[in-house]
Amino acid sequence: MAAAAAPMRVPGMLDANLRVRGRVPYAMDLNVVGMLHAKLLRSPYAHARIVSVDASRARALSGVRAVLTGADLAERDDIYPYYGPIFRDQAALAMDKVRFAGDPVAAVAADDADIAQAALELIDVEYEELPAVFDVDAALAAGAPIVHDEPPRLGQTFADIIVRAEADTNICNHFKLRKGDVERAFAEADHVFENEFTSPPVQHVPMETHNCVAWIDAGIINVTTATQMPFAVRASLAEIFRVSQAKVRITTPTLGGGYGAKTYTKVEPIAALLAQAAGRPVRIHLTREEEFVTITKHGVKIRMKTGVTNDARIVARQSTCWFNTGAYADIGPRLIKNGGYATGGPHDIPNVWVDSYAVYTNLPPAGAFRGYGVSQAAWAYETQMDMIAAQLGWDPLEFRMKNLLEDGQAVMTGEDMFDAHFKELLGSAAERIGWDSAEQPQRTGSKVRAKGLACIIKGTVTPSTSTAAAKLNEDGSLQILSSAVEMGQGAETALSVLAAEGLDLRLDQVSISRPDTDVTPYDQGTSSSRNTYSMGTAVRMAVGDIRTQLLELAAAELEASPDDLELVAGRVQPRGVPDKSIAYGDLVRGSRSGNLLANGVYASKGGLDPETGQGIGSVHWHQAAAAVEVEVDLDTGKIDLLKYHAGVYAGRIVNPVQAELQTEGNIAFGLGQALFEEMIFDGGQLQNGNLGDYMIASMEDMPKEISLGILEHIEANDIHGIGETSLPPAMPAIGNAVYRATGVRITDLPITPEKVLRGLRARAAQESAE
Amino acid sequence: MAAAAAPMRVPGMLDANLRVRGRVPYAMDLNVVGMLHAKLLRSPYAHARIVSVDASRARALSGVRAVLTGADLAERDDIYPYYGPIFRDQAALAMDKVRFAGDPVAAVAADDADIAQAALELIDVEYEELPAVFDVDAALAAGAPIVHDEPPRLGQTFADIIVRAEADTNICNHFKLRKGDVERAFAEADHVFENEFTSPPVQHVPMETHNCVAWIDAGIINVTTATQMPFAVRASLAEIFRVSQAKVRITTPTLGGGYGAKTYTKVEPIAALLAQAAGRPVRIHLTREEEFVTITKHGVKIRMKTGVTNDARIVARQSTCWFNTGAYADIGPRLIKNGGYATGGPHDIPNVWVDSYAVYTNLPPAGAFRGYGVSQAAWAYETQMDMIAAQLGWDPLEFRMKNLLEDGQAVMTGEDMFDAHFKELLGSAAERIGWDSAEQPQRTGSKVRAKGLACIIKGTVTPSTSTAAAKLNEDGSLQILSSAVEMGQGAETALSVLAAEGLDLRLDQVSISRPDTDVTPYDQGTSSSRNTYSMGTAVRMAVGDIRTQLLELAAAELEASPDDLELVAGRVQPRGVPDKSIAYGDLVRGSRSGNLLANGVYASKGGLDPETGQGIGSVHWHQAAAAVEVEVDLDTGKIDLLKYHAGVYAGRIVNPVQAELQTEGNIAFGLGQALFEEMIFDGGQLQNGNLGDYMIASMEDMPKEISLGILEHIEANDIHGIGETSLPPAMPAIGNAVYRATGVRITDLPITPEKVLRGLRARAAQESAE
Repeated sequence: MAAAAAPMRVPGMLDANLRVRGRVPYAMDLNVVGMLHAKLLRSPYAHARIVSVDASRARALSGVRAVLTGADLAERDDIYPYYGPIFRDQAALAMDKVRFAGDPVAAVAADDADIAQAALELIDVEYEELPAVFDVDAALAAGAPIVHDEPPRLGQTFADIIVRAEADTNICNHFKLRKGDVERAFAEADHVFENEFTSPPVQHVPMETHNCVAWIDAGIINVTTATQMPFAVRASLAEIFRVSQAKVRITTPTLGGGYGAKTYTKVEPIAALLAQAAGRPVRIHLTREEEFVTITKHGVKIRMKTGVTNDARIVARQSTCWFNTGAYADIGPRLIKNGGYATGGPHDIPNVWVDSYAVYTNLPPAGAFRGYGVSQAAWAYETQMDMIAAQLGWDPLEFRMKNLLEDGQAVMTGEDMFDAHFKELLGSAAERIGWDSAEQPQRTGSKVRAKGLACIIKGTVTPSTSTAAAKLNEDGSLQILSSAVEMGQGAETALSVLAAEGLDLRLDQVSISRPDTDVTPYDQGTSSSRNTYSMGTAVRMAVGDIRTQLLELAAAELEASPDDLELVAGRVQPRGVPDKSIAYGDLVRGSRSGNLLANGVYASKGGLDPETGQGIGSVHWHQAAAAVEVEVDLDTGKIDLLKYHAGVYAGRIVNPVQAELQTEGNIAFGLGQALFEEMIFDGGQLQNGNLGDYMIASMEDMPKEISLGILEHIEANDIHGIGETSLPPAMPAIGNAVYRATGVRITDLPITPEKVLRGLRARAAQESAE
Repeated sequence: MAAAAAPMRVPGMLDANLRVRGRVPYAMDLNVVGMLHAKLLRSPYAHARIVSVDASRARALSGVRAVLTGADLAERDDIYPYYGPIFRDQAALAMDKVRFAGDPVAAVAADDADIAQAALELIDVEYEELPAVFDVDAALAAGAPIVHDEPPRLGQTFADIIVRAEADTNICNHFKLRKGDVERAFAEADHVFENEFTSPPVQHVPMETHNCVAWIDAGIINVTTATQMPFAVRASLAEIFRVSQAKVRITTPTLGGGYGAKTYTKVEPIAALLAQAAGRPVRIHLTREEEFVTITKHGVKIRMKTGVTNDARIVARQSTCWFNTGAYADIGPRLIKNGGYATGGPHDIPNVWVDSYAVYTNLPPAGAFRGYGVSQAAWAYETQMDMIAAQLGWDPLEFRMKNLLEDGQAVMTGEDMFDAHFKELLGSAAERIGWDSAEQPQRTGSKVRAKGLACIIKGTVTPSTSTAAAKLNEDGSLQILSSAVEMGQGAETALSVLAAEGLDLRLDQVSISRPDTDVTPYDQGTSSSRNTYSMGTAVRMAVGDIRTQLLELAAAELEASPDDLELVAGRVQPRGVPDKSIAYGDLVRGSRSGNLLANGVYASKGGLDPETGQGIGSVHWHQAAAAVEVEVDLDTGKIDLLKYHAGVYAGRIVNPVQAELQTEGNIAFGLGQALFEEMIFDGGQLQNGNLGDYMIASMEDMPKEISLGILEHIEANDIHGIGETSLPPAMPAIGNAVYRATGVRITDLPITPEKVLRGLRARAAQESAE
């Protein structure tokens, strides 16, 4: 693949104008003729046996076209109504038991949503309540109620690194990392610190909740759905309906945000099953309240033990992570790997030991969430870094600088670090915030200011596969077939830029397809900040092939060597001789092939040994740092963010405006999770499952001053995803600043005013006792 | 490309069940939200200057959302509102002049079709009528009114063989064929015959009339249209809207018949222009009456001069063909080439001279029609063959047999014939019908029976380009990306068979895409009986590449040579060792590429020299024969078909049931055109433009006995299209039988009872005079 002479720059999203005018259609805007509307009846119990479901009154309601219960699914042998990317442990409708408050037990498709809703109230379900577990300690206690009576059915995906769950335990999966000899290293360390850190489950809150339309047409199961992973949904539906994947067609318009919530199968099976039952298209569109119990970020408890020497070198770290994966595994078994190894941090630590567990409980399922376990890990290790520094009187910046990875040093998963920029990122962040280790908190009245830092490493899904195709038309315009999902992050713009510059075309000469699993090539999913790099690489490979074909055609025409030719503005010419140039379209027509076709396949190596967690953890490593200045009101505990610097390594920046917007989005996500986001359960019942009671960051909460340091090294010719990278450092940077301002160390997110005040009172009590 | 062990056989169309139950959606079934309905105001005059159009009252009508007139288009420089595959001589709406009765002058988009229709009546158009020409003689007479004042704008397509029309003439185009020395050959011939033959314009009568829905969405011009040529429509709209082809998306569902009527651009421009004007989706769906004036078969007059020796060898043929192409060229300039060279017939004639003209008149445009000019040519030469035989007392069968082409003999366009089966086809047809040259007409009461024969050659569009892509999924199922148009002929079934057998898959493991110009690869169009061969070849190439990839993956896995492996039922195995087989899906997963991708490009050579008509006329030659027994009622002139044998060469038969149905369809088309189909004009006004007055064949008219001889030679590993091939011999075979029954030779189609009775009376008068 030949690099373009100079990177093309594009001002933001190509369709920004249409987006702000509401002219971009989402899945929910699709109106299929004859379409019905579906509603789900959900369990009020966190754990119960379904004794009986009587839907006869609902079926009799005028306007109701189909009603399905778990029993309807259980009795059929033409379907296999289970799904889940790792374990097939979730049924389209609960059949024997419900496992969380919100688990769907029946579904209705009706002429409109009101009728469907009314029908739900006519379904009589008899439950026998069972003892339940909600936190990982209870779930792992001896004699705990077991969420899944038998080991869940194993799927194929990622089977290499998954340990099969055993019966009679709530451990869904266990990831192990064994590097060096932690026991000896702890024994030899000058200081050993052991602390516990927790993060709560939180919500993704995409503006668009889960929704899809399913219809079965000429034997083909069609679903237009707001998913980040059309091919995973296709595989799932093919399995459920016991048909070949060629008979399932998933199409995906632009998404109204994803953030991991829309990875893997969610509402598609029940919509398709209802469409089949009703013989009509069926839409399902979750309410915000339903969205809250559909998928969450993992709540987690991490016990972290770190050994350091007197000269501030980290020599060993041992972590035990208990991820609360809720009632169904979703991608939990894989996420605990990333979250587990991430506890090794961006540090050159010779001895690392990790046990990371996914634990079933009777909470809503937890899955992928922007940051993918790394936020939880970074909260632990970057908080502990400051705790150690404070304890030993070290400058937190210097302590980090001494240990941050450099090229050639081994990361926690064993491979050599390359293209490392941690020190540059953290150093720059510290400078931008005016970091001075000698600086004391500045107090004005009840308000006190201080600064905090954090620096993180994040892997991207590995191995990683994206494939693409390119089609050069007879007028020289270019069409890219890609299954990348546009979800507001600018995927299509980025791919347009990469495609256009590969052939020196204008952006209006390029189109990027939307995912349509019938025709667009496989992509594993738009997640893990992988798209611009992985799909971008596949697109560049396909376009590079087209470029080669053009050069060969022109070489034959011009009786020249391809090496002596260049591509300039849609034409091929002998270098520097525009008079002899030939338009691409003329070359295509001359080839008599109607179009030039090419494919690009990006398939990385990678994967970890299941016994040691060593191998290739990430195709490359995402790197970020944050520096923040907070102001804490000692009377109220309220925390304001005065200054915030986000530093992230981009390799090459494909779209500067989007790179900045993505990073600002991470700040908003980060401060929300740092300061107030938390799903609160009481006996498995969500107490704040709506956007009135559940707080996300508003513009009001944003830092007064934001500076962005999106680090670019074009010469590396590598693109690093930045969709999530600057999120994980936000929470510990804020926590560290709050500690420096108040002396209150909070290890359980979020850092609420109540906790700050409690901490201040405890400190005061301790000081007065001393 | 590896041939499958044994051809797969499939019972008819895969979706036949859905089709007969009305479950297959057509373009007209698409309902886009907010869609408007369009109607066209058409000229009542055959030729007139548009003095003024006042649409103000129409625009004011409630429910009217957009009104366009020619003036609205003429004043814009952001569009180029002309189209036409060869000459851009047709405007979306007439601007300066109307050129046939039915030429659209204004268009309305409204909330429903009734409102749009009502609005048409509120548009006031002032015309200044002009003298007009309706037949080729009048059009070519000195001082004739000129249909196009200036030479039409030349397009790019097929530009190599098109002679630019001159001003001040109604000759739209002129094709020349010059082979050998006809002058000398006529001089040396023992007998020279010269006759004139005519065919009238007729209708295609697809059950589905022209229709489309257009909408402009995020800057993309989308049209879902019932077309046989999505890519030609795309090119046309890109030109009209002055955008790159990447910004126009044409999608095509199954068609309700095409027969050539749906080749090239028709209703799409005005629908898209209305959609743009209204800012809403717009459907246009022609009534049957509008369909009659949208596109027709070419009426033609052919003067044919043939020289023969006493031993029944044809030594020279000279033809002059005047094709009445109507008011706009459409594909006329190319059709006259095929119709012109086809007058050379399936005979080994050393000296051939053809002048073939497309002539503009003030009739509705003529274009592609099943048989593509060859029906008109065959009507001439196969009628003349019998006239010569009758005159010289030869057996028409023997006369033909003596002259039919064999392998290695030069066809009229100069290249060597190969894979010739004319003699086999005709011999078999004669045998099946019980041909006996000594047999006399059998009379019973007023009814008399006799038999007739014909044999034809037909070229397929050359050069010919189809491209396809294949995608093998991770469950081993296969998806084909093709722009082949399914129009009831079974394209998808045929391609499914070819794709499935290439990998030894079941048909339910294969999907064939519908055309979507954004993503499916280029195809020049589903026409010319080319799809199964051309697209089939492209598909087989793509699938062959997948096969190679599978063998290589398996070879690596099994540590074997690919040559020692075989594909059996979705698995690769060492030959004869199923125990070691690996499923395709496992090989795909092992490759980590998510899917295997491959492209297939079929691009034939070919083309004729514009001065001599010599070169490569057809990638291969389609061959057919017909034999018929008729019964003519001498009192009424009514003709019944008692027995009909259709013989056609198929190479390999991909789908036996469809092959038979296609051939039966040709019989229906052929007998209609032989016996009653004719568009009757009076002063340019169509007199029978509806299915009450215009007769097509009904089941009642079908031959009492049909026998089909679909000749297969699998070893040739070639597929010959049969969609049209058996149509051209129908008319002359019937005409020849009627002559043998009655002694009445009719040279102007159709062979109506009136003409038979007139002929009988003339013969009686002549006999009584003698």
